[in-house]
Amino acid sequence: MGGDHGPRVVVPAALGFLKRDQGCRLILVGREEAIRPHLPNGELPGRLSVQNATQEVGMDELPSRALRGKKDSSMRVAIDLVKQGKADACVSAGNTGALMATARFVLKTLPHVDRPAIITSLPAINGRTWVLDLGANVDCEAEHLYQFAVMGSELVSAVEGIDRPTVGLLNIGQEEIKGNEQVKEAHELLSRSDLNYIGYVEGDDIYLRENLDVVVTDGFVGNVALKNTEGVAKMIRHFMAVEFKRNIFTKLSALVAMPVLKALRRRIDPRRYNGASLLGLRGIVVKSHGGADKLAFENAIAIAKKEVTADIAERIEKQVTQQLNVSASA
Amino acid sequence: MGGDHGPRVVVPAALGFLKRDQGCRLILVGREEAIRPHLPNGELPGRLSVQNATQEVGMDELPSRALRGKKDSSMRVAIDLVKQGKADACVSAGNTGALMATARFVLKTLPHVDRPAIITSLPAINGRTWVLDLGANVDCEAEHLYQFAVMGSELVSAVEGIDRPTVGLLNIGQEEIKGNEQVKEAHELLSRSDLNYIGYVEGDDIYLRENLDVVVTDGFVGNVALKNTEGVAKMIRHFMAVEFKRNIFTKLSALVAMPVLKALRRRIDPRRYNGASLLGLRGIVVKSHGGADKLAFENAIAIAKKEVTADIAERIEKQVTQQLNVSASA
Repeated sequence: MGGDHGPRVVVPAALGFLKRDQGCRLILVGREEAIRPHLPNGELPGRLSVQNATQEVGMDELPSRALRGKKDSSMRVAIDLVKQGKADACVSAGNTGALMATARFVLKTLPHVDRPAIITSLPAINGRTWVLDLGANVDCEAEHLYQFAVMGSELVSAVEGIDRPTVGLLNIGQEEIKGNEQVKEAHELLSRSDLNYIGYVEGDDIYLRENLDVVVTDGFVGNVALKNTEGVAKMIRHFMAVEFKRNIFTKLSALVAMPVLKALRRRIDPRRYNGASLLGLRGIVVKSHGGADKLAFENAIAIAKKEVTADIAERIEKQVTQQLNVSASA
Repeated sequence: MGGDHGPRVVVPAALGFLKRDQGCRLILVGREEAIRPHLPNGELPGRLSVQNATQEVGMDELPSRALRGKKDSSMRVAIDLVKQGKADACVSAGNTGALMATARFVLKTLPHVDRPAIITSLPAINGRTWVLDLGANVDCEAEHLYQFAVMGSELVSAVEGIDRPTVGLLNIGQEEIKGNEQVKEAHELLSRSDLNYIGYVEGDDIYLRENLDVVVTDGFVGNVALKNTEGVAKMIRHFMAVEFKRNIFTKLSALVAMPVLKALRRRIDPRRYNGASLLGLRGIVVKSHGGADKLAFENAIAIAKKEVTADIAERIEKQVTQQLNVSASA
C-alpha cells in the first residue's frame, strides 16, 4: 500500500517479477479490495497470494505513531510475516522511518549491532559502489560507523560475490581540519580491523574511484549524498532535453543520437539501483523508493530475493559476532 | 604558486583576465624567476606587476605549519597585501586549509562572526545555487549555521543583485529522525530571523528547486555535496564518451550531436563555477580549485573583482552586525 502509487505499481511489479523468476512465491500485503482491481481478471496467478491488512501507514506519518497505532497496517503485517517465518523477506515502498522503526521493533537487531543501517548501490564508472548509512542514523559514533562497515562489507560480499570488498570511510580532503572526531576514531577502528579497509575517500570517489566497493558514512551525510546524486543526474537529463529540443536541427540530432542516449540513460537509470536494504536486523527488509515505477519496484524485489538466496541475515550475524567480538576483546 | 599547475596556469589566466577587463590591476605574488618564463617575452604588460615571495605552501602542508613557518610564502604575502590595503582581494589556488588559517590570522574575522565559511555556486536548473560551508568548519553549532546564512544571503544579494535571496537549510527528509539537534536549532533561529528563509531543503533541491538561492550546511556535508556533484558530472561525461565511441555509427551521431553536446557541457562546465569565497573575514579572499585551468582561474579572478566592486566585506560586516545583534538581543 506504500509509496506514491500503492498497489497500482506494486501489483504489476509482483506479476512482472514472477514472470522472470520461476522459484519465488510472493505475498501481496494490504487491503484486498485495493489489490484485486490490479490483478488480471481479478484472479491470483500461481505463486501469488494476498494477505489482508486493514490499515495503511501514511507517507508522512510519525514512525512512533505508526508503530503504536497501526498494528494491522500492511507494513506491520508484512514484517510480522517475516518474524513468523511465513515470509523470507519484506519489500516496501512505504514511509522509511516507520519501516525502520517497525522492522526494528518486530524483528530486533542482531547481537553486537547497536543500530541498523540502510544501504544501497549507486552507479560508478567501474560498476557500482554501495553506500551506507542512508538516513537511519543521523548522529553516529565511531563504533556505529565501524559496525556499518562490517555489515556493508558482508552484504556486498554476499550479493556481488566479491571475496573481500574494499571499504572506504567518507571524509573531506583538507588537512588538519580533516574529518570530525567520530570519523577519525572510526578510521582507527577500521585500520585495526580484518576488513579490506582502504582509508578515507571523498565525495567524488563514490562515482569515480576504481575498486571501491563500500563507502561508510553517517545517515545525514549519506542521505544528502544520495539525494545529490539524484539531483545532479536529473539536472543533466533536464539540460539534455532542453538542448535537444532547442530547434529543428537539434531535434534531428537527438533522433540520430537516440541509441547512444538510450544506452547512457540505461547506465544511470535510478530504477536499476532501486532497493535499499535495512541491515543489522534479524530478517530481510528492502525499502523501495516511494516514487518507484513497476520496473524499479521489480528491482527491489530482485534485491530481496538475492539476499534471501545469499542467506544474508545469517551471514551478517556471523560476521558481526566474529568481527565485533574481536574488536571488543582487542 | 599554488594549485596543481602553479604559474603555468595563474600567469596566463591573469593575462587573459586583463585583456577582458579594462579596470583592474593584478599583482602576481610568488617567486619571480618562476613567474617570468610565463610572461610574453618575459615582459610585464600594463596593469600587471610581480610581488616577489620566496616560499611556497605545499598542497599537503599542515595549515598550522604553513602559518608559523612560512612568513614569506606567496599565500602569506598576497594576504598581507590585502591587509595593508595594497590589494583589494587575494585569489589563490593553493592549500585550502592553509589559505583559510592564514587569512583568518592576518585579516581577522568580522565582529559577531565566530567562524569564517567557504561558499561557491553550483549549477541548477534555474541558474545557480550557492552553498556554504564547503569545508572550513567540520562541526557546527546552530549559531554558526545561522551566521553562515546571514553571510551567504548578503554575498548572493551583492554578487547576483537579488534583493532578498531565499535561504534553505540542508536536511534529510525523514520524519522524526529528521535532522540532528544543530540543524533543528538552526531552523528555529532562521525562522525567527529577518532572512528570506524558506525552511529545510534536501540534497536534490540544490540542483532542482526553483527559487532557491542559498543552501546552508556544515562544512563536512557541504564538502561531500560539492565533491559528489563533481563526481556525478564526471561519471556522466565518462559514460557519454564511452557510448559515443562505441562504434562507427555512434561516432557519427556524436558529430551530428556536437552542437548540443557542447551546449550541455557549457551549462555544467565546472570551470564556470570555479572560485569559492572565504566569507566572514575583514577582506576578500577567493579560493580557486587546485586543478583549475586558465579559464577556470580567470573565473575565480572575476569573482574577486565582483566582490570588490560590490564592497562585499563591508556589506557583510554591516549585515552581520545588524542581524546578529538583533538575534543576540531577541
